[in-house]
Amino acid sequence: MKIAIAGYGALGAATERAVSNYPDIELLGIFTRRSKTDIPNTYSASLYSFDSIEKYKGDIDVIINCMGSAYDLPKITPYLANSFNLVDSFDTHKLIRSHFEKTDVAAKSAGKLALVCAGWDPGLFSIARAYMRAVLPNGVNYTFWGEGVSRGHSNAVKQIAGVIDAVQYTVPVSSAVYSASNGEFPTLKDTDMHKRVCYIVAEPGADVERIEREIKTMPNYFEEYNTEVHFIDYESFLSEHTGAKHGGSVIGCDKSDNINSLMEFSLKLDSNPYFTAQILLSFSRAVKQMNDTGKCGCITVFDIKPRDLIPDGDYFSLI
Amino acid sequence: MKIAIAGYGALGAATERAVSNYPDIELLGIFTRRSKTDIPNTYSASLYSFDSIEKYKGDIDVIINCMGSAYDLPKITPYLANSFNLVDSFDTHKLIRSHFEKTDVAAKSAGKLALVCAGWDPGLFSIARAYMRAVLPNGVNYTFWGEGVSRGHSNAVKQIAGVIDAVQYTVPVSSAVYSASNGEFPTLKDTDMHKRVCYIVAEPGADVERIEREIKTMPNYFEEYNTEVHFIDYESFLSEHTGAKHGGSVIGCDKSDNINSLMEFSLKLDSNPYFTAQILLSFSRAVKQMNDTGKCGCITVFDIKPRDLIPDGDYFSLI
Repeated sequence: MKIAIAGYGALGAATERAVSNYPDIELLGIFTRRSKTDIPNTYSASLYSFDSIEKYKGDIDVIINCMGSAYDLPKITPYLANSFNLVDSFDTHKLIRSHFEKTDVAAKSAGKLALVCAGWDPGLFSIARAYMRAVLPNGVNYTFWGEGVSRGHSNAVKQIAGVIDAVQYTVPVSSAVYSASNGEFPTLKDTDMHKRVCYIVAEPGADVERIEREIKTMPNYFEEYNTEVHFIDYESFLSEHTGAKHGGSVIGCDKSDNINSLMEFSLKLDSNPYFTAQILLSFSRAVKQMNDTGKCGCITVFDIKPRDLIPDGDYFSLI
Repeated sequence: MKIAIAGYGALGAATERAVSNYPDIELLGIFTRRSKTDIPNTYSASLYSFDSIEKYKGDIDVIINCMGSAYDLPKITPYLANSFNLVDSFDTHKLIRSHFEKTDVAAKSAGKLALVCAGWDPGLFSIARAYMRAVLPNGVNYTFWGEGVSRGHSNAVKQIAGVIDAVQYTVPVSSAVYSASNGEFPTLKDTDMHKRVCYIVAEPGADVERIEREIKTMPNYFEEYNTEVHFIDYESFLSEHTGAKHGGSVIGCDKSDNINSLMEFSLKLDSNPYFTAQILLSFSRAVKQMNDTGKCGCITVFDIKPRDLIPDGDYFSLI
């Protein structure tokens, strides 16, 4: 099957890199809005102008839409679903329903299939929550993210005057993880479950106390959280804080009839974008197959059977 | 929907008990081959003779077949699939394909749907292996069972002369779990991954050295494993070793491109049969729905979408 990548940021580049793990998937190229001279073509795939994408309608089985959730996907996914099968990893939880509905209208009218929210959360973690919800009907589940970088929070810190560069790690609170994973059924808000740890490179002579105060009192982002702020030099920043590690866990617990049942699904990732790319690529096969048999519209990972994701020959060996 | 339970052992009784967690599922009764006077009717469901089950064809949407894997399910599941939708938790890994094929013929000819191997392994662990296989195409996965009782091994020990009662725990070898879950990609055989720990009540004056030797040299069951044998008195046995705790984990690792990705799915269960019962009940809903829309034959958990297991109203909240 033939795919194309839309968007050449961190996720697009990771998808380009990971495609070699899929011998049955051929990469036509990468469609980007930036000029070709503007970007390093790291892994030698062909680059195309995004504006020309409609011309390749007949050559692409599935587009992996690797653009950003905040501004691009809400427009670009419905636009592309009007001409192509596609997969994205849209991850703004609050806006998922409207993203789904807009994409559904576009894909249905074109007879295409669009799988949205197919990263790891939403995505694999959603699947874990669904199975936990199903088999523990009286249970509760907890989702912990991290330790890993939150790009949105890092960007918010970078806007503060006197900050040269910054990174924000979301870190699960270990006592909350312990309590959930030992079946204590704690009542936890997001602010009890995670703390926020910032590493900041400040301008020489900047008022670091003011910067710390501005971070810790920033509404929505930090105010309600336990937040740590560390000032470091640029060299340490570059050597220790430019990685893409991430992870997290979903914990489901039930004590119906006073019988404890605990389920846990967890991830430890060297590279958030590389792992997300592998999910998108794996699910793109199912999208092509399902569209080939007539399925169209918008779907999520909940609409795909495990069978559609594995090679036929592995059916009995994986059971 | 209306279900019936076939078989009134530990799993049948656990299913009877757990059904109250499913307000939409009504239990018609339990079909057993034992005489009514022979068994305690713990939770007050109606008891029927197994021989009369065909008479209730029109009254049962799905049968939860709770009989034993070793001798009963290979015959009873295909027999029942000839008249009913059903779910079982057949777990003899080597014989799954033939169990599937015999059941498929029966269910197809009757227009019924039979879901087999829907416990936690095979079952939920199979699902974990499938997603890991899909999203880590170059990865490997490891399955650890325990700590928990193996009934087959316990029964084997009970056959030895001089043994009054016995229990055998399968226990994951912690260094193997550590190595797998830290992405060291160890090469592990089942005998490297698990040890076997036996608690024995011996007859007074029995030759405990001989019993220990007979256990440790028993082919297939113990010979190739690191096996511990502990002799205890009957009182300790009853107070400490009659529980039904179990658990385990599936660990998937990948280091394509020298990037480590680790996925883990684990269970900690107070009661193996109660949790298995909840899985069977949860999946029985999907079996009814899928048969209602025309699906028939034999399937496994790989053929069921997460969407078919969750209430419609939870679709977006679980994403």
